[in-house]
Amino acid sequence: MAKTYKPVTADILKALREIVGAGNIFTDEEKLESYSHDETDASEYGHNPEVVVLPLNTEQVAQVVKLANKELVPITPRGAGSGLSGGAIPEHGGIVISLEKMNKLLELDRANMVAVTETGIVTNDLANTVQAEGLFFAGYPMSLQTCMLGGNIAENAGGGKAVKYGVTGRYILGMELVTPLGEIVQLGGKLVKDVSGYDLKSLIIGSEGTLGIVTKAIVKLIGYPTAKADLLVLFKTPKEAIDLVPVILSRGLTPTSIEFMDQLSCITSCKYLNESLPYENAGAMLLIELDGTNASQIEMDLVETGKLCEQHGALEVYVAEDKNNIERIWNVRRNIAEAFKVYSPTQSLEDIVVPISRIPEIIPELERLGKKYNLQIPCYGHAGDGNLHATLVKNPDMSMDEWKKNEVLCLEELYKITSSFGGKISGEHGIGIKRRGYLQTLIDPVELELMRAIKKAWDPNYIMNPGKIFA
Amino acid sequence: MAKTYKPVTADILKALREIVGAGNIFTDEEKLESYSHDETDASEYGHNPEVVVLPLNTEQVAQVVKLANKELVPITPRGAGSGLSGGAIPEHGGIVISLEKMNKLLELDRANMVAVTETGIVTNDLANTVQAEGLFFAGYPMSLQTCMLGGNIAENAGGGKAVKYGVTGRYILGMELVTPLGEIVQLGGKLVKDVSGYDLKSLIIGSEGTLGIVTKAIVKLIGYPTAKADLLVLFKTPKEAIDLVPVILSRGLTPTSIEFMDQLSCITSCKYLNESLPYENAGAMLLIELDGTNASQIEMDLVETGKLCEQHGALEVYVAEDKNNIERIWNVRRNIAEAFKVYSPTQSLEDIVVPISRIPEIIPELERLGKKYNLQIPCYGHAGDGNLHATLVKNPDMSMDEWKKNEVLCLEELYKITSSFGGKISGEHGIGIKRRGYLQTLIDPVELELMRAIKKAWDPNYIMNPGKIFA
Repeated sequence: MAKTYKPVTADILKALREIVGAGNIFTDEEKLESYSHDETDASEYGHNPEVVVLPLNTEQVAQVVKLANKELVPITPRGAGSGLSGGAIPEHGGIVISLEKMNKLLELDRANMVAVTETGIVTNDLANTVQAEGLFFAGYPMSLQTCMLGGNIAENAGGGKAVKYGVTGRYILGMELVTPLGEIVQLGGKLVKDVSGYDLKSLIIGSEGTLGIVTKAIVKLIGYPTAKADLLVLFKTPKEAIDLVPVILSRGLTPTSIEFMDQLSCITSCKYLNESLPYENAGAMLLIELDGTNASQIEMDLVETGKLCEQHGALEVYVAEDKNNIERIWNVRRNIAEAFKVYSPTQSLEDIVVPISRIPEIIPELERLGKKYNLQIPCYGHAGDGNLHATLVKNPDMSMDEWKKNEVLCLEELYKITSSFGGKISGEHGIGIKRRGYLQTLIDPVELELMRAIKKAWDPNYIMNPGKIFA
Repeated sequence: MAKTYKPVTADILKALREIVGAGNIFTDEEKLESYSHDETDASEYGHNPEVVVLPLNTEQVAQVVKLANKELVPITPRGAGSGLSGGAIPEHGGIVISLEKMNKLLELDRANMVAVTETGIVTNDLANTVQAEGLFFAGYPMSLQTCMLGGNIAENAGGGKAVKYGVTGRYILGMELVTPLGEIVQLGGKLVKDVSGYDLKSLIIGSEGTLGIVTKAIVKLIGYPTAKADLLVLFKTPKEAIDLVPVILSRGLTPTSIEFMDQLSCITSCKYLNESLPYENAGAMLLIELDGTNASQIEMDLVETGKLCEQHGALEVYVAEDKNNIERIWNVRRNIAEAFKVYSPTQSLEDIVVPISRIPEIIPELERLGKKYNLQIPCYGHAGDGNLHATLVKNPDMSMDEWKKNEVLCLEELYKITSSFGGKISGEHGIGIKRRGYLQTLIDPVELELMRAIKKAWDPNYIMNPGKIFA
């Protein structure tokens, strides 16, 4: 599917300058470098664009895309560059369209409980602004402090609250899209239901910028949950921890989060933070958060959830209802990746998703793979939705050559196991560059062909974020 | 886009008989007739197929589709025929593939809280079976007693519980699809999150059988809500009723349903049922249902919701907590369409969806249109999600010719108004045959072209449910 693209010539630069204005374009090496990578390993995946443009509005984006089609220059849309699969990397050079200047919240419509916003808005800014109005954007990921809404939409981001609230896509009611041919189209609306033709909006969500650039979004808001409580529950083994998940959910309890940490993750993060969670005898932990607008309801749910844990094999159940204690526990969960970076900065953060019931079977496989390939593989993540951030961590004494060889072999094996369990290789981080090779070998060729057919029909010149998802 | 199709020859019948077996195919006129229509007006939209086949498994469906491609014979997939837009009508003759014999619940997986089922299952059978296990299929529409899951998926059905639970699509985690070229592919899985490539599953949901035939589905289940309570709230005007909706939702209260009835709807249904709801002075009513697993929580929410109603202009708030009273009120809501059929059997049941805040503006427009075209236009529906079943009812003394002329003119005007309010012409019933002409004139040509491009890429012979959505 790869094409031979044309270079960005002086004439093209002139035309781009006319579209976005001289202050919103740059080609100097130093600046280009900062648009060459995301949160994946820059040395492995990074690649400079030939030019970066910062359009100020949708019309400018559309004009740039039309120009790129005419000149056969590849385009890479970019949000905050906080992605974890290389989705924003301009692998083929060409033009990076950064939406960072399209960051305005255009409308806060209380009557319909929606926000209309440009997609270069930092997700945290959106969340804070609506919170001041007592409203809640529930579809945001754990990296909300840096990421932008456009990136969340491109990857259909998940995060820690997805058990109760679902992922980003559920909250995107409508969007303005610049198609791969540079047409502007409005999809969806301030509408909760809509079956007037194909659901193109959902097709765009999670398509990693390969089917167009989302320039505006209509975001559904809900009432801000003012009450919150957390349980930290210790188990002897991962199996006992995971077996509890359907027990809780089938009672009609819907925790905001059911986060899982294995012993290695918890110990490493606690040591890093000099924290002292009571983890010594626990082979696994669940961190269960409940939220809502009614404190006494949360209290009742908390008691019921705690009882269920005790009845179903928990070693200990700790309750945290005050902000400080809640924050302490979540800090351990959030710092696992950082803690392992101290141990060894070279890692591959994975994002497998399996049916919840298969999580206990994955854990011993991770241990086996760790031994086989001489890696540490801590496992933590979103047990409530089967999405595990198993992380391959290089042993400090391993050579980089050996690491690179073992990483590939270990991932191949891990992904095959995941697939054999009915799972997929990415739950919320996306395929991007990093996983495209693996995807092609694991996916049913019929499904791949259906995807390619859409890509080809919409983007005949293959200029829109090439190299992502497809090999 | 319409093609010239070939007739179903004796050779094709022979080949079909070999695929599905002699007992699962018929061509006698009388039986064909019952597959010629759905719940739309048969005299206007009905059309006989040339042959009906009842495949027993996915492999047979795939073989029939492959044969149809080879012979250029159109295919119309069919569930229960309870659709409201003509989606299951074989307008071009050819082959109807009825899934009625593919009705087995294949697996009830408690650990993952999913059901795996063939899609010819009656939605009610699925709901009852999982309820016996304390589980709930929340994605079903109001016609659940007759409809089949495959049809719910094809139309992305909504229903009365969508405010809290969303529509059918939210509960479809995976599917087995026979593509328009007759390939079998598995999409999604027992997975809550998945961003491993394009979300083809969501594209299929609501595509009205034009992009393939869903033969199996993986359905997400939740805990069965054991507690329930209802409020019947009277208002002077529709505006006051609708203004309350965001007030409730922004407090973090999530009623299961917020149903709206205008005075005409309520009076007509009450008279039909010989029921005596206290409606005399009420210009509009909301029927608010709360459900959950914890009776005391529901009680608290009920009190809070009732207070909000009183503080925001309700004339009266009636509480119904016992089954009989709840059923009485819902009976009035459910029988509106039937009640108007007694008044006049000739109707056009509409399905517009608008931003919730615009509902009060739609109501006077409906009154105006009713006067202008000499029709009754009661308005009721799902206020909590902006989806209104405004219904054009023929005056008994109007000629059929005049009705047909006025129906078209009135719908054109109604749809234009809906569109100008940021709404769409179908929230949950689909476009089908009935609304395809209107869709082509209202939709952005760019959006239509994006849809057509997918259809063309996936179904090059245009044999899969032709004539639906697209004109």
